[in-house]
Amino acid sequence: MAKESSSIPCTPLLKDELDIVIPTIRNLDFLEMWRPFFQPYHLIIVQDGDPSKTIKVPEGFDHELYNRNDINRILGPKAACISFKDSACRCFGYMVSKKKYIYTIDDDCFVAKDPTGKEINALEQHIKNLLSPATPHFFNTLYDPYREGADFVRGYPFSLREGARTAVSHGLWLNIPDYDAPTQLVKPRERNTRYVDAVLTIPKGTLFPMCGMNLAFDRELIGPAMYFGLMGDGQPIGRYDDMWAGWCTKVICDHLGLGIKTGLPYIWHSKASNPFVNLKKEYKGIFWQEELIPFFQSAVLSKECTTVQKCYIELSKQVREKLGKIDPYFTKLADAMVTWIEAWDDLNPPKVAAEVPNGPAKAK
Amino acid sequence: MAKESSSIPCTPLLKDELDIVIPTIRNLDFLEMWRPFFQPYHLIIVQDGDPSKTIKVPEGFDHELYNRNDINRILGPKAACISFKDSACRCFGYMVSKKKYIYTIDDDCFVAKDPTGKEINALEQHIKNLLSPATPHFFNTLYDPYREGADFVRGYPFSLREGARTAVSHGLWLNIPDYDAPTQLVKPRERNTRYVDAVLTIPKGTLFPMCGMNLAFDRELIGPAMYFGLMGDGQPIGRYDDMWAGWCTKVICDHLGLGIKTGLPYIWHSKASNPFVNLKKEYKGIFWQEELIPFFQSAVLSKECTTVQKCYIELSKQVREKLGKIDPYFTKLADAMVTWIEAWDDLNPPKVAAEVPNGPAKAK
Repeated sequence: MAKESSSIPCTPLLKDELDIVIPTIRNLDFLEMWRPFFQPYHLIIVQDGDPSKTIKVPEGFDHELYNRNDINRILGPKAACISFKDSACRCFGYMVSKKKYIYTIDDDCFVAKDPTGKEINALEQHIKNLLSPATPHFFNTLYDPYREGADFVRGYPFSLREGARTAVSHGLWLNIPDYDAPTQLVKPRERNTRYVDAVLTIPKGTLFPMCGMNLAFDRELIGPAMYFGLMGDGQPIGRYDDMWAGWCTKVICDHLGLGIKTGLPYIWHSKASNPFVNLKKEYKGIFWQEELIPFFQSAVLSKECTTVQKCYIELSKQVREKLGKIDPYFTKLADAMVTWIEAWDDLNPPKVAAEVPNGPAKAK
Repeated sequence: MAKESSSIPCTPLLKDELDIVIPTIRNLDFLEMWRPFFQPYHLIIVQDGDPSKTIKVPEGFDHELYNRNDINRILGPKAACISFKDSACRCFGYMVSKKKYIYTIDDDCFVAKDPTGKEINALEQHIKNLLSPATPHFFNTLYDPYREGADFVRGYPFSLREGARTAVSHGLWLNIPDYDAPTQLVKPRERNTRYVDAVLTIPKGTLFPMCGMNLAFDRELIGPAMYFGLMGDGQPIGRYDDMWAGWCTKVICDHLGLGIKTGLPYIWHSKASNPFVNLKKEYKGIFWQEELIPFFQSAVLSKECTTVQKCYIELSKQVREKLGKIDPYFTKLADAMVTWIEAWDDLNPPKVAAEVPNGPAKAK
């Protein structure tokens, strides 16, 4: 017994408040490698493909497994908003979770080592990131001022040092970087070997490319914005699921005065996906993205948007109105955004969707 | 001869295009320690205190030395805009330089070592930062995408990958962090030991606390904005010289579509200044800062502001109008801002102050 428990190297922080959401586990080593870190937590596995295939979860993991049949049964016609045959289906896991925090990770992501050779407990770092404030309103040149050995530097206004609540912790990847297909094709051998020992807040008003490979968030603060869109089977694009969620989430966090951090922890991204397959998925997104970014950069939410749900519905209207012209896909996506919120509220009674106490961020 | 040249470990990049500006050298070891790195360059030393005292510059350094008498002689009545008995006087050096680039460093900053124990050539890293583009319009999660081994990640719009021209490279400090007096008092023993191996662009629309200890900039692109204000003798505040320059510079860079980077290189900041003396200098600034930040966050420059000078004059008008109410000091500062630009143009004939070819940044 003593031996078993010694294989868990850390206090299982927030054990009863965090779910780990994984979209399909194809790699049998994946859970074994993460066992010391993940076993104390509850797992939600959302199977992206053929529901007749069975995913084998190793002994000892407390988990729920959902396949397409389950999603259809639970959501009924609203299941249309959940992608099929694409890892974007993971957002169904965010919806059925009853916990305050979510950590989501891909099954080709393994435990990374820090420069001293020590295995990195990614979850522990994400939790630290989420439990300490963020600094979206002014940049601190020594990075995260709440970290041990750091602070706010000279010239940082004192009134801003309480910071903002952290809604999202975006972790990074050693080895295979998260490149798009054109970059993969041009730099097939590039590996990320640089361990940057920093966590920083992405400033208010700045968009970033949010990757879903190694991502944690506060479900109560921002959950309904974490919709991974319509990707995969029957859809004209793929690989923009996390990006879409990131852009929507950033606009809403900025409006509600919440913070998003990026940097530590690293995971080890073991293998590059096929760049030719990726190019096919990304093709239209590469063009559309050029119009999506100005759209999100200029998106303004009204004062009435005091909950994430209200923000998201307002954003869906703007998507329909302004992006519907680009392609009928965006009208369908706007519909799905509304369906997503309806389904979220069905599964999460309104008390969970309380108003953010701070209310919307004050305009500058 | 061969032995001598081997003491210069790097190619003296931009040897004829960069001046090193230092405000008074009190520490005799300072230049000796930097000799291998600085000797190829021209130094401009601006003596901040009693002009009857002589600064001894070791043999072998090509340099100019200016004391208060020189400043008065060269600028005449306009010398009033240059601070006395304060390191803010260093900005006189920016004005008299004829080079494209400036590196400025304090005399208590020594050569730092990277985690492998190798001495860091700070100047070389600053030059790399200045010669490669910046990314102020979208955040790249793998930091500087132009660096060896890195690139733009998936989801980064292709139209933005050319980046913006880099105007400023803000370097950091190991050992003594750049804290304000209250933080120094509360954390007297805190040392910065974390080497963060990253360079990143401060996004458009985000202010940061710019420290003048280890700073490089493109004088042709942004020089006239690098005014270090009225500090020291006869002024109600100190230690806000670099902050003031940073806030003005950031607003102008954002308007003109230029980028500011922060991160590498580190220098070794050898000693903390006296926190009691610092508190006296900072006291009013701590209050005023709370009004300065919203002022700079909401400052908008008109389309007619197509040069740094025009931007700076417009900003001086806004300072007079909006900050003059806080304290008469800001009216005096607004006057000094105008005098600074007049003096700059006297010493730098208008051809240098060409319009920024890109023109002002497009509104989002």
